[in-house]
Amino acid sequence: MPFQLTLLGTNSAVPAYGRHPTAQVLQTGKSLFLLDCGEGTQMRMSQYGISRRERIREIFITHLHGDHIYGLPGLLTSFSLNNRTEPLTIFSPPGLREMIEAVLKYSHAWLNYEVNFAVVPTDQSVQVFENKEVTVHTVPLEHRVPTTGYLFREKPGLANILPDKIAEYNIHFSKINAVKAGGDFVTAEGKIIPHAELTRPPAPPRSYAFCTDTVYSEAIIPLVKGVDLLYHETTYVAAEQEKAVKYAHSTTKDAARIAKAAAVGRLICGHFSSRYTDLSALEAEAREVFPNSSAGIEGQTYSVEKKRTS
Amino acid sequence: MPFQLTLLGTNSAVPAYGRHPTAQVLQTGKSLFLLDCGEGTQMRMSQYGISRRERIREIFITHLHGDHIYGLPGLLTSFSLNNRTEPLTIFSPPGLREMIEAVLKYSHAWLNYEVNFAVVPTDQSVQVFENKEVTVHTVPLEHRVPTTGYLFREKPGLANILPDKIAEYNIHFSKINAVKAGGDFVTAEGKIIPHAELTRPPAPPRSYAFCTDTVYSEAIIPLVKGVDLLYHETTYVAAEQEKAVKYAHSTTKDAARIAKAAAVGRLICGHFSSRYTDLSALEAEAREVFPNSSAGIEGQTYSVEKKRTS
Repeated sequence: MPFQLTLLGTNSAVPAYGRHPTAQVLQTGKSLFLLDCGEGTQMRMSQYGISRRERIREIFITHLHGDHIYGLPGLLTSFSLNNRTEPLTIFSPPGLREMIEAVLKYSHAWLNYEVNFAVVPTDQSVQVFENKEVTVHTVPLEHRVPTTGYLFREKPGLANILPDKIAEYNIHFSKINAVKAGGDFVTAEGKIIPHAELTRPPAPPRSYAFCTDTVYSEAIIPLVKGVDLLYHETTYVAAEQEKAVKYAHSTTKDAARIAKAAAVGRLICGHFSSRYTDLSALEAEAREVFPNSSAGIEGQTYSVEKKRTS
Repeated sequence: MPFQLTLLGTNSAVPAYGRHPTAQVLQTGKSLFLLDCGEGTQMRMSQYGISRRERIREIFITHLHGDHIYGLPGLLTSFSLNNRTEPLTIFSPPGLREMIEAVLKYSHAWLNYEVNFAVVPTDQSVQVFENKEVTVHTVPLEHRVPTTGYLFREKPGLANILPDKIAEYNIHFSKINAVKAGGDFVTAEGKIIPHAELTRPPAPPRSYAFCTDTVYSEAIIPLVKGVDLLYHETTYVAAEQEKAVKYAHSTTKDAARIAKAAAVGRLICGHFSSRYTDLSALEAEAREVFPNSSAGIEGQTYSVEKKRTS
């Protein structure tokens, strides 16, 4: 079961040095989610080998700045031209439906499939989505316009039944799912074998938090506590703290402080200002505070492996 | 004085095989015009070295289908983020102002500079623009929505004064411009030397016609008669005539017939359907009818040289 993030765009508003506006794809099991959709996202998907993009049934938008949404009209109409029929739900702060409807109207376009616009709150953390594999919660952010991050968390799996215990107690396969789900096993002799003896616990649920755009905000910390992977915007180097605050963005150190305080597994930096040709200084700054930090690279996939329990 | 066309996007609606939706840049002397603006146009400009894009003061839009306009919001806001102050005029069929205003409103964006929306007719050929170097006329096209091509024509230049005549008649430099502009020269002895003896005619004005999207339409022929360069859409191969008519597009043969009947200098084909990986068959078909045809290549620049008169 993959749990992996592919970055399609790591730059802030103005594309530069081959970097593009924000977009990423999160694959969790069979689900493929698109997170933000800057201009050119559909081309990046082709470039970086995101195949069968019609599997995307949910898009999560952090806020309505152009560098996070201007790729939507092209993507939605291409879906339609490619004969998509599956419905699509777009989660976002208010106003997106109105914008997309205006664009479609004036550009004489229509969609073959149903698009649902789900307005999400930006001032509280609530669950906005779940399927068989994951839940998605909002993570309120502080930016110049209503903005929310998103936390993706796997649902707890079933326990792993131990093969030697199946043999030892001669457990029929029809009973196995009940044991995995938490049940004890009763032998033919009526002896109760407790669940804990028969199994090892399921792997801990994997998690990813997508936090862009935001000024340094400690309110994020408890919401992303212990996530395996955190993407936190790092528009500026630490020396540009004043500018970061002015434009409600974060520096590398801001992001790394959040990562450290929340004890996340790994920090991916992104949303880089177009002033930076070389990102190594930004990466180094983040690592000073939180060693497991990386400057995000477009086209790269960041996987979270399932941990084996004992 | 350059007169050259750079293709930024040669594909039809759905991007494919590294080809992008329609956009091109025409440079005539000091002027830089953007023609159509499909999604990702600003990235293509960077990729293909269109420098100093702030020189673009006019954008000409053929019609309001997404693959010709979805790059505008990103381009306009990037201009603003790059501190553009020069006004910009966008020529298009009706509805574009309304769309752009809606996008800017819902995406919390504003522009530092003035944008004028000039609505152009799509049912008659009229002059919609001129500057010191060129005139621009509409070329009505037949598509599923109001659509117009554009004809760019250099203004006639001044005659070239012959250096040996300057010497022969001892023409003072203060008199040269009057002769170039069409005047005769009067010698110190009062002898009138006619303009024609002193000069060779100016180079013929160069011209480019941009015709996309359209079904085969003979009404185009007289309007683009004798242009040096014609871009005519060729969405399909000739065998797909029925489909071309159904979707109001052209085949390679349609485009080549227009080029031949109008006796243009060169035909550039484009707006290729995403079904074609290899464009060589399309190019070959066009050449059967009009030998000087080329399948347009993104990033390539097509120059029209000034002809020397004698």
